[in-house]
Amino acid sequence: MVNETQHTCSASSSSRSDGGSSSGSESSKDSSRCSTPVLDADRHERLREKMRRRQDSGDKWFSLEFFPPRTANAAVNLISRFDRMGAGGPLFIDVTWHPAGDPGSDKETSSMIIANTAVNYCGLETILHMTCCNQSKDDITGHLQKAKRLGLKNIMALRGDPAGEEWEEEVDGFNYAVDLVKHIRNEFEDYFDICVAGYPKGHPEAESYEADLRHLKEKVFAGADFIITQLFFRSETFLKFMKDCQAIGITCPIIPGIFPIQGYHSLRQLVKLSKLEVPQEIKDVIEPIKDNDAAIRNYGVELAVSMCRELLDSGMVHGLHFYTLNREVATTEVLKRLGIWKEDPRRPLPWAVSAHPKRRVEDVRPIFWASRPKSYIYRTQEWDDFPNGRWGNSSSPAFGELKDYYLFYLKSKSPREELLKMWGEELTGEESVFEVFTCYITGEPNKNGHKVTCMPWNDDPLATETNLLKEQLEKVNRRGILTINSQPNINGKPSTDPIVGWGPSGGYVFQKAYLEFFTSSEIVTALLKVLKKYELRVNYHIVNVKGQNITNAPDLQPNAVTWGIFPGREIIQPTVVDPVSFLSWKDEAFALWIEQWAKLYEEESPSRMIIQYIHDNYYLVNLVDNDFPLENCLWQVVDDTFELLN
Amino acid sequence: MVNETQHTCSASSSSRSDGGSSSGSESSKDSSRCSTPVLDADRHERLREKMRRRQDSGDKWFSLEFFPPRTANAAVNLISRFDRMGAGGPLFIDVTWHPAGDPGSDKETSSMIIANTAVNYCGLETILHMTCCNQSKDDITGHLQKAKRLGLKNIMALRGDPAGEEWEEEVDGFNYAVDLVKHIRNEFEDYFDICVAGYPKGHPEAESYEADLRHLKEKVFAGADFIITQLFFRSETFLKFMKDCQAIGITCPIIPGIFPIQGYHSLRQLVKLSKLEVPQEIKDVIEPIKDNDAAIRNYGVELAVSMCRELLDSGMVHGLHFYTLNREVATTEVLKRLGIWKEDPRRPLPWAVSAHPKRRVEDVRPIFWASRPKSYIYRTQEWDDFPNGRWGNSSSPAFGELKDYYLFYLKSKSPREELLKMWGEELTGEESVFEVFTCYITGEPNKNGHKVTCMPWNDDPLATETNLLKEQLEKVNRRGILTINSQPNINGKPSTDPIVGWGPSGGYVFQKAYLEFFTSSEIVTALLKVLKKYELRVNYHIVNVKGQNITNAPDLQPNAVTWGIFPGREIIQPTVVDPVSFLSWKDEAFALWIEQWAKLYEEESPSRMIIQYIHDNYYLVNLVDNDFPLENCLWQVVDDTFELLN
Repeated sequence: MVNETQHTCSASSSSRSDGGSSSGSESSKDSSRCSTPVLDADRHERLREKMRRRQDSGDKWFSLEFFPPRTANAAVNLISRFDRMGAGGPLFIDVTWHPAGDPGSDKETSSMIIANTAVNYCGLETILHMTCCNQSKDDITGHLQKAKRLGLKNIMALRGDPAGEEWEEEVDGFNYAVDLVKHIRNEFEDYFDICVAGYPKGHPEAESYEADLRHLKEKVFAGADFIITQLFFRSETFLKFMKDCQAIGITCPIIPGIFPIQGYHSLRQLVKLSKLEVPQEIKDVIEPIKDNDAAIRNYGVELAVSMCRELLDSGMVHGLHFYTLNREVATTEVLKRLGIWKEDPRRPLPWAVSAHPKRRVEDVRPIFWASRPKSYIYRTQEWDDFPNGRWGNSSSPAFGELKDYYLFYLKSKSPREELLKMWGEELTGEESVFEVFTCYITGEPNKNGHKVTCMPWNDDPLATETNLLKEQLEKVNRRGILTINSQPNINGKPSTDPIVGWGPSGGYVFQKAYLEFFTSSEIVTALLKVLKKYELRVNYHIVNVKGQNITNAPDLQPNAVTWGIFPGREIIQPTVVDPVSFLSWKDEAFALWIEQWAKLYEEESPSRMIIQYIHDNYYLVNLVDNDFPLENCLWQVVDDTFELLN
Repeated sequence: MVNETQHTCSASSSSRSDGGSSSGSESSKDSSRCSTPVLDADRHERLREKMRRRQDSGDKWFSLEFFPPRTANAAVNLISRFDRMGAGGPLFIDVTWHPAGDPGSDKETSSMIIANTAVNYCGLETILHMTCCNQSKDDITGHLQKAKRLGLKNIMALRGDPAGEEWEEEVDGFNYAVDLVKHIRNEFEDYFDICVAGYPKGHPEAESYEADLRHLKEKVFAGADFIITQLFFRSETFLKFMKDCQAIGITCPIIPGIFPIQGYHSLRQLVKLSKLEVPQEIKDVIEPIKDNDAAIRNYGVELAVSMCRELLDSGMVHGLHFYTLNREVATTEVLKRLGIWKEDPRRPLPWAVSAHPKRRVEDVRPIFWASRPKSYIYRTQEWDDFPNGRWGNSSSPAFGELKDYYLFYLKSKSPREELLKMWGEELTGEESVFEVFTCYITGEPNKNGHKVTCMPWNDDPLATETNLLKEQLEKVNRRGILTINSQPNINGKPSTDPIVGWGPSGGYVFQKAYLEFFTSSEIVTALLKVLKKYELRVNYHIVNVKGQNITNAPDLQPNAVTWGIFPGREIIQPTVVDPVSFLSWKDEAFALWIEQWAKLYEEESPSRMIIQYIHDNYYLVNLVDNDFPLENCLWQVVDDTFELLN
């Protein structure tokens, strides 16, 4: 928004006085009887309701603005940044709209697709910016329809920069942001939450500060739900603006836009674009240190923190909007110092919830995709219903095929050279593969001195929870039980437990021990003999790449392996081992050997053939110990297997 | 069936060679993916599949035949008998068809309604007999359609007694049982399981034993699924018959009909009707003791046990069918001595499952109706879907009104005079009501020396589980906390626990402590003060007859209060406290004061006014202690309340 310009048209009659009068079929359905336990009210509210609730409860919040990157690699990095900064608990993020960059296209770097990724794959409430200047009604409607289809619920309605120097109003065209606001409300009724821009110093092109305030009021009365402001350098500027807004009857939330100064050049460029003036006292500090990036950033953080404190202390500000410039450090630092960065945000479910409105009832998933949630979301994006309460109710059990292993949001975060360093430039046998798995578990460097921080089935280092099993996992991986997923048994820990907890406080969480691994047919043969002793205590599914499937699971029933009991609610069972889904996962899990690992090596090379051999001959095994109150017996199962082999 | 006669027509072409070739839409839907955890395969199988599975597993079973009673009171008694004998675990019961008794009508004593009651209210797999002789096609189709509508899945197809002495075949009419079998298959395809009668000695009207066997084969080939035989007095008779059947290609199950001799007269009458001859060795024993009922019954039991043993030992017999003559003692005794009466049949769910095919996925109910399951079934009979997995999914949350408190299957088992003895001929104040509640809990006689074995909200003595809370319940009832429902907290007991266990073995069951009671507004005021200390730990709903409702439950969400975790399955949560349903239950619970208790007394009498006062002024309260792993705090809540009052 930093580089957007805006005008509002002069007269407009509107019957809407606020954004909440009519409610679509979706919200009216929710109002009667909720079909899913509301574990986290946030998940079921639209953005304007979340803001209102935070305002009522006095919880301060923040939001983050990003722009779409230019290259696919930069997009992958931005997504990692979404994940990391999402962990701090922003109320929403927003993605700017760049008319020159084909913003509504399917390109992985378009505004539309970046916002789609944030919502669907990163689970972030997202506002997509949209400009209307020099665009046809059909184009705009098309963009909005596409946004709706992708699950986007919030639009920042802007005018955008006029194309030529001598801009003229088009008759019946989109000349001002207010035209876009009206268009959205006309065509999509109450579906979208609409945000508009406010200018604490008045828009540079406005006739006057007062005239600009009136334009803002028109935008709000045309149906906007809240306002985000242009950046400013002094808290008084914002507080005065807010009072002036209120004085003329603007009652919706007004969120101050905060710009932590991060460098000399970015500040200069921004000031030029936004036609703002940097106060002399700031110039005085910056000019002498203009070549010292670190010093400027430290100063910028300092400045932002003190301004934010003043805003929050005023009692008039409940949320802060940050212009991140796609950078992490400064904004994160400001938020941490303000104490509104959530170090340990409560997890509503043990996995990251997608922010797509259609998926908001979803509360059951197969455990197999625990470390590949984006792939799970991608492969289930066409489902009409999402499992809610129990897996067996899923009316769409068919998984989409996953052939696009290199889709940018499924891409490994590490480039090829780095993967080769981690997983071995040259493999000498199956044992060198065992070593890679073992190093990933232990965190120790491999024999070439490189740490293994990701695996084809796991783009991130070991989960804290898995650390509980580290010692045993190391032992079994060394011997060729190549683990890709596991969880310890939990018998009623508080839902606030920092490692295994999830859901609202006052509850208890439970797990059945789970272990999933690749292993040789020799080990499988011994394992099957051992498993006879365990009968129904241990459920197993054993399958090879050809689909030969051995199991003792009753019928085709899913087995709940994570569940929680909460005050005043139905039981939640967010993770299951589902025999049917396992066969879809199996295809993906085996293919990752080839797609992510074997293909790092030349065709016909010994390294590639080793991976290919494992792919062709190993089995994928999962084990569940049903007796969750007792000590996990899966390690005993594996020990017995090794003993039988000796 | 004892008093039925039967013929089969001579020739019939049929393409059906067994009862399992085509499957209706219902079973094909089930075949793909079960939408509910199959806790008990029995619930999801049709009768012929159950038989087949028992045969494969070698589990011996039994079934029970009853006839419809003549009076409504006798019907109430028969239903109690269904409940008691149902506890022994029959594979099915069957209800005979009496053309003279308007068997297809809506009268509470009709065959149709008795079978309906057995299926829907007693949860018993049931076969309804049906005769076809002298009836029009439309009448028969009408009966079958009604049976289907009521949830009956099994028909015993019989000819029935011809109306006149000189019976003649009607052209194109229903002359023989085989005509009825064909008609059912033509009109209802595979919907019904069909049973036909076999005559081990040959039908009395058949030309010969061999001719009768051929008729039987025709019935089977026309679509019957299994055969129940007429009674016989020697095991050889049955075993020979069975071999002869097999020799001519009858391969379906053949179930021997067992008649334990219970008295001299009933035997004589039966023999006359069935035209059987009693073997001399039996006559020799019976004649000398013909006036000693007990002696005859003992002898009959002895005889039946030894014959059944021979049958079972032959290896050819898997199930035994008992002609009970609507009596309990002899049949129960035989079954117990044979060891096939299940003293503690495994409960698939903590409440009795209805045998209606539409309800077979049902696995969640509100706890309120725990002691009035028949009322719950009655009030939900019009639902299209039944909650499955979670209550929140129920698409039919509207309860039918219950105005028919005297519907025969909702009737108190005790007559008015007995109720007056238990609940007081004359009440002197609220304290005398407290005393009734207290005596019900303690099992001690009231001051007039009568034990209180039922209450308006509870037709049976205290449940074993509730006994765990007896001491505390006594204490609080004495002081005017008039409890009508409660359960202790359970933190993971084995599913095989004899008191609180349910579901398949190898699982763990859990409960939140629950307490439901009527109490005065004075106590409610104090209670509410106390509850403030417990915040979210204790959820409460407090309501009076006018519907004034006080609660701290989040939104309208149900609270799961019973759940179970089983090997290889999703979580089951069979009982919930549902805030919406509570308001329907409230109406019923308050009305029972008046309908069952106040109306025992004269209008305007002091006793009636006391009950009326309680009805008008007391509150109905339910409390859930969400912290199931800790010691139940509800007693502390009540103690604190009393302390506050003192």
